[in-house]
Amino acid sequence: MVWMVGVDVGGTQIKMGVVSAQGRRVLAHRILPTRSYASPSKLAEGLSRTIEELRGIHGLPRRSCRGVGIGLPGLVDGSRGIVHQLVNLPGRWQGVPFAQLMARRLGCRCVIDNDANVVALGEWRAGAGRGTSHGVYLTLGTGVGGGIISHGHLVRGATGSAGEPGHMVLLPGGPRCGCGRRGCLESLVSTAAILRQARAAMRWGHRTLRACVEEAGELTPAVISTAAARGDAAARRIWAGVGEWLGIGVANLVNLLNPECVVIGGGVGNAWPWFSPALRATVRRSAFSLPARTARIVRGQLGVRAGVVGATYLLEEDRGGHA
Amino acid sequence: MVWMVGVDVGGTQIKMGVVSAQGRRVLAHRILPTRSYASPSKLAEGLSRTIEELRGIHGLPRRSCRGVGIGLPGLVDGSRGIVHQLVNLPGRWQGVPFAQLMARRLGCRCVIDNDANVVALGEWRAGAGRGTSHGVYLTLGTGVGGGIISHGHLVRGATGSAGEPGHMVLLPGGPRCGCGRRGCLESLVSTAAILRQARAAMRWGHRTLRACVEEAGELTPAVISTAAARGDAAARRIWAGVGEWLGIGVANLVNLLNPECVVIGGGVGNAWPWFSPALRATVRRSAFSLPARTARIVRGQLGVRAGVVGATYLLEEDRGGHA
Repeated sequence: MVWMVGVDVGGTQIKMGVVSAQGRRVLAHRILPTRSYASPSKLAEGLSRTIEELRGIHGLPRRSCRGVGIGLPGLVDGSRGIVHQLVNLPGRWQGVPFAQLMARRLGCRCVIDNDANVVALGEWRAGAGRGTSHGVYLTLGTGVGGGIISHGHLVRGATGSAGEPGHMVLLPGGPRCGCGRRGCLESLVSTAAILRQARAAMRWGHRTLRACVEEAGELTPAVISTAAARGDAAARRIWAGVGEWLGIGVANLVNLLNPECVVIGGGVGNAWPWFSPALRATVRRSAFSLPARTARIVRGQLGVRAGVVGATYLLEEDRGGHA
Repeated sequence: MVWMVGVDVGGTQIKMGVVSAQGRRVLAHRILPTRSYASPSKLAEGLSRTIEELRGIHGLPRRSCRGVGIGLPGLVDGSRGIVHQLVNLPGRWQGVPFAQLMARRLGCRCVIDNDANVVALGEWRAGAGRGTSHGVYLTLGTGVGGGIISHGHLVRGATGSAGEPGHMVLLPGGPRCGCGRRGCLESLVSTAAILRQARAAMRWGHRTLRACVEEAGELTPAVISTAAARGDAAARRIWAGVGEWLGIGVANLVNLLNPECVVIGGGVGNAWPWFSPALRATVRRSAFSLPARTARIVRGQLGVRAGVVGATYLLEEDRGGHA
């Protein structure tokens, strides 16, 4: 049986899966703590060792491995296999040929890309975007990541950094964003932005929301959804606001890229029932009518598996783009 | 000699050129008034007759014609040869298979696309974007048009309407745009937006600007450039503002598409010396550093020929996209 490995490197944990090439069945799964690997070469060593271990345990022959796909949370030039910038991982990452580092250790094909591109690939090939040729993929969470599929290919751009819809400025002079600018989509709908609004709401009353937070012991986007479900007006307004800002961003993308589908995933994406009505209404109102009608706006289907499954599809993408 | 025809249909006039397939030399040129053709079929008839006329005059054999490329100012599905919407031309245009109408009359290959996509193709293949694989093309004028080249192909999207950077919302609640929304890039940097600011400035003094307008007999973007050249502070501020808004829009596009070049053309593009410093500074400040360094921001090179020359390159693009 031909097998492959998908790796989803996050700031906190690394998810790794050995999957069958056919059907993408997960044969083995492992989670590693990101902080244990102090440098790119330590990470390459750790990943390789774990892959070899899993291979041994499951009796998978080396020669039937199709390769390893890896998603990394930063500026990655997938077509050249180079990491340009990776601020959430320990060590110096500028200009690191990580695909090559991995391939040398494992003796098989290794491909890397930005984590949000990887999720886009996964949802496109095996999730909510299956069967389409043009799609926009957004992951909502700590940051707002994205990936673009155009004419049946992942859009990487000149140096691999294409697909950052989270850093469209939508409100000049708006909230400060992690990227240093103000009013990016990310600054308006990220976890931090949502929690900031919830904290303000709690200062002004909103007992249901406060009760939910006390019950849960902490304030999270999921808790705000619970409060919305129990009728808290502030919680509902916060999600409607997320839907509206997201809708303006998605409308811009719809006018720009005329996709068949817009797929929303990521942790904050779980609040879909609460923000999606405002999202859809805003896109209908704000984008041109034909492309707005064309674009199905849907929730991601792969959930937490998106990164691992998507990474294996890197092995089927042509490396240098399709020019 | 192999020849081809490029047609640039505008709201006021139609530019048509017979060009050599090699080197794109313009062999014959004709301008027609758009209003003379009351319907799609009348326009097809008029264009075909004029092409036949030019062919006869210049003794070009029918069999050595490679085809006719046509840019139209509206929502065009180039890959299917269908016009979806064309509000500035007389007659009913919804769902018109114009490429087929033309081909039936002329008995040669006819290809259509949106006029801004055509300009993008021209600048990419024969102008400021030559040799690149990833580019964003903007035309500034009455409207703000655009085209995207990604991985060596024109991005058309699912129904051919991709590439509308003019309708990214950059200032929610901002000036009313022709598309019905508020605060689109177009509403901030179109000819109308620029003239509106100049009129306000004249009400508040600004004698140099007023003198320039009196000399010219009318207020146009070119007159505002003249006033800027003569040191008028309001005129300079207007152009700096255009550069800044354009810079925010271009920074969004740079983060989204990671192009090698951003090419600015169109009538208002002639004020390049006045708005480009603010444009470049804003992009440097607002986009991520690697993609901002990667993207050369330059002026279009083809000027008024862009539409005619670009249309002939439609004959070399694959029709159905590159999926």
